[in-house]
Amino acid sequence: MAILDQRALPHLETYIEARTSGDVATAIREMAVRGAPLIGIAAAYGLALAYIRGEDVGAAKEALAGARPTAINPARALERVARARDPVAEAVAIHEEEKERCLRMARHGAELIKPGSAVLTHCNTGVLATGGIGTALGVIYKAWELGRVRTVWVDETRPWLQGARLTSWELGRVGVPHTLIVDGLAAFLMARGKVDAVLVGADRVAANGDVANKVGTLSLAISARHFGVPFYVVAPSTSFDPHVPDGKAIPVEERSEEEVLSFGGIRAAPGGTRALNYSFDITPSCLITAYITEEGVREA
Amino acid sequence: MAILDQRALPHLETYIEARTSGDVATAIREMAVRGAPLIGIAAAYGLALAYIRGEDVGAAKEALAGARPTAINPARALERVARARDPVAEAVAIHEEEKERCLRMARHGAELIKPGSAVLTHCNTGVLATGGIGTALGVIYKAWELGRVRTVWVDETRPWLQGARLTSWELGRVGVPHTLIVDGLAAFLMARGKVDAVLVGADRVAANGDVANKVGTLSLAISARHFGVPFYVVAPSTSFDPHVPDGKAIPVEERSEEEVLSFGGIRAAPGGTRALNYSFDITPSCLITAYITEEGVREA
Repeated sequence: MAILDQRALPHLETYIEARTSGDVATAIREMAVRGAPLIGIAAAYGLALAYIRGEDVGAAKEALAGARPTAINPARALERVARARDPVAEAVAIHEEEKERCLRMARHGAELIKPGSAVLTHCNTGVLATGGIGTALGVIYKAWELGRVRTVWVDETRPWLQGARLTSWELGRVGVPHTLIVDGLAAFLMARGKVDAVLVGADRVAANGDVANKVGTLSLAISARHFGVPFYVVAPSTSFDPHVPDGKAIPVEERSEEEVLSFGGIRAAPGGTRALNYSFDITPSCLITAYITEEGVREA
Repeated sequence: MAILDQRALPHLETYIEARTSGDVATAIREMAVRGAPLIGIAAAYGLALAYIRGEDVGAAKEALAGARPTAINPARALERVARARDPVAEAVAIHEEEKERCLRMARHGAELIKPGSAVLTHCNTGVLATGGIGTALGVIYKAWELGRVRTVWVDETRPWLQGARLTSWELGRVGVPHTLIVDGLAAFLMARGKVDAVLVGADRVAANGDVANKVGTLSLAISARHFGVPFYVVAPSTSFDPHVPDGKAIPVEERSEEEVLSFGGIRAAPGGTRALNYSFDITPSCLITAYITEEGVREA
């Protein structure tokens, strides 16, 4: 199973050859493959691989589910594959269904974008995050096709720079006008009237509508509310977790300090500095204008 | 005139030998020396150098004032040196006065910090920004001495990483406990009750109290208001500009795209990507809990 190593983008297109389900779990944990819907699909294929190879499927399932704790998509996908008569066909079906959900989200969401809008997005929620055209970025692609998006503000998204590396790359390939900014500039652009809507994805949506998403999302939602800018969460039904009552109950992944202290092997902070590296934050439902799923638009 | 090149910190302590006022203007423009009070002091010494050397002082003053447009401190310091009988003595006096202002701000500000506080700061506002102990960071040093600060959250402060490189270095040298975070995490720490106060400096304060400060400040102020966390601006009277009515009239410096497209000298975004790089943003007075100056504490 070949996995595009997104850590090397946009400079190199290299592939990891995953021979075992453990290789797939490692690729997810180390963020060679990322994005909630896509790690769901990758986990499904990983478990199918475990069945084909006659691995201990219980252990494989546990490793794949535990690779990253915040997104709910892997756990749901793994349950489906584990219950299926044909694990490989089931993994393929999961992939196909996510693609279809992206198209439906894009159609629903594009209706919400006013013609000539400048939209702002965070992290990467496109082809590289979903296996389809994307969640928030899928809506942006569709709205641009329809002439509703004039330009896109791309948050660089520290510490992994998914915005700078991946979203800029995707938008550049398709030719959607976009401008990269540091995460801290978003509020000021809103203050100056330069943002008509904010669109983000979700790693998990709790039963009460609270959203776990890439760190920095909460700050955007608070600023959007302050300036009266609509704030949309775009996520397939597979990212909704009815078993978690609210955001406080969603596990927030804490990753290595090194991701904050360094970049590309270059150390920014002095030796001995400690860092706190939460990969996600929780945005309460009260700050969300609407949820866009494959089923339609639901106002919060 | 020897100028510590802050761009090389924390890894190297190298000095630039400034032989002309033009060398000083270049050091300011290229951010070898930065921080509103400190570039005021550097500009004053630069103009004194022009007088000593018999340079065209009108041209020197213009170059030093125009090196960076947002902070008001250089313009004010240059006026003083230009009017003085002894330019060198005047530059030294400006330096000494700023040091003294720092000490007074620190004493006033420390009173506002509740014992055992975790405080959050943005950019670098310490020894490296002021020529004294600092503005916001000076308050933090003093409050820590008094047992009022338990720990400091340090925003890394993209794109120049003044927090990661300079504030971490300063706090580490003195032994103040601190933790580095990406700028996007600040709001979530506030949501979790982990921030008791936010302290920032200012590059210019307009007559109505609006504050120009490092990009990312507005976002912090909005989040602080949302979560009921006090938000303090610490700035000497030399950063207040009575001639500018409000924040809209403060010129906001726009710097090279390259500072956003790259990280630590390594290119993050794909070729052809455009970026918008405002160095500052404007925080309206309504979001500020109080201003701490050398004269005391003034509630907004």
